[in-house]
Amino acid sequence: MDKIEHIGIAVKNLKDSNSLFAKLLGASHYKMEEVPSEGVRTSFFKSGPNKIELLEATTVDSPIAKFLEKKGEGVHHIAFAVDDIVMEITRLKKEGFTVLNEVPKQGADNKLVAFLHPKGTNGVLVELCQEINEG
Amino acid sequence: MDKIEHIGIAVKNLKDSNSLFAKLLGASHYKMEEVPSEGVRTSFFKSGPNKIELLEATTVDSPIAKFLEKKGEGVHHIAFAVDDIVMEITRLKKEGFTVLNEVPKQGADNKLVAFLHPKGTNGVLVELCQEINEG
Repeated sequence: MDKIEHIGIAVKNLKDSNSLFAKLLGASHYKMEEVPSEGVRTSFFKSGPNKIELLEATTVDSPIAKFLEKKGEGVHHIAFAVDDIVMEITRLKKEGFTVLNEVPKQGADNKLVAFLHPKGTNGVLVELCQEINEG
Repeated sequence: MDKIEHIGIAVKNLKDSNSLFAKLLGASHYKMEEVPSEGVRTSFFKSGPNKIELLEATTVDSPIAKFLEKKGEGVHHIAFAVDDIVMEITRLKKEGFTVLNEVPKQGADNKLVAFLHPKGTNGVLVELCQEINEG
């Protein structure tokens, strides 16, 4: 767990929220990315060494659509950067955490990701993410 | 908005959560602090350039007690480091954000803090915090 890589925030309307967070953070988002397998469209903002990721649902059964329905807009997950996600998954399982993706999956922003069940982490959906090395 | 200074997480039992987050982050909390004016007891963990702050209520009418009652354990706020909190409050008010503390107040961890109303920030309780310079 090297640092907070990003905070994921579920929003209803990405365009409106891009404008809002640009005002909040003092700089516009630097990229957008769609992850069809997750049913989300995302935008990324820099905040020093960290990022803010806004997430909008693109399908009715997207995890983000369900989150918005249940809890409304707000913080969806906290992602921690890890060097070796497979080793970290093994370590956390030994510590008693419930890992939702025992095999890491491809996430946004060129990352391998895995989530921990929030029931085991005081209600916080924790994402582990490892940068995918090219070539 | 220099970086994510910390993420505040509301927990029911600080002792249990200190143990849990030590396992999660791979290192124990490095300090605890009580803020009687806010009715909270806090602990701090390092995560690279960022911190995780756990918050436990010490009074029944503490904002954390109310949050736990309404929403349960989970992310309570995101704090951004700022160099000049008064200037930042002025800027954000001009941008249309609702600043809950027009005069910054003393928070935990030797900081001047001010909060933005989550209704104006997609449900995210945003804290601005500025390190207090000694002497």
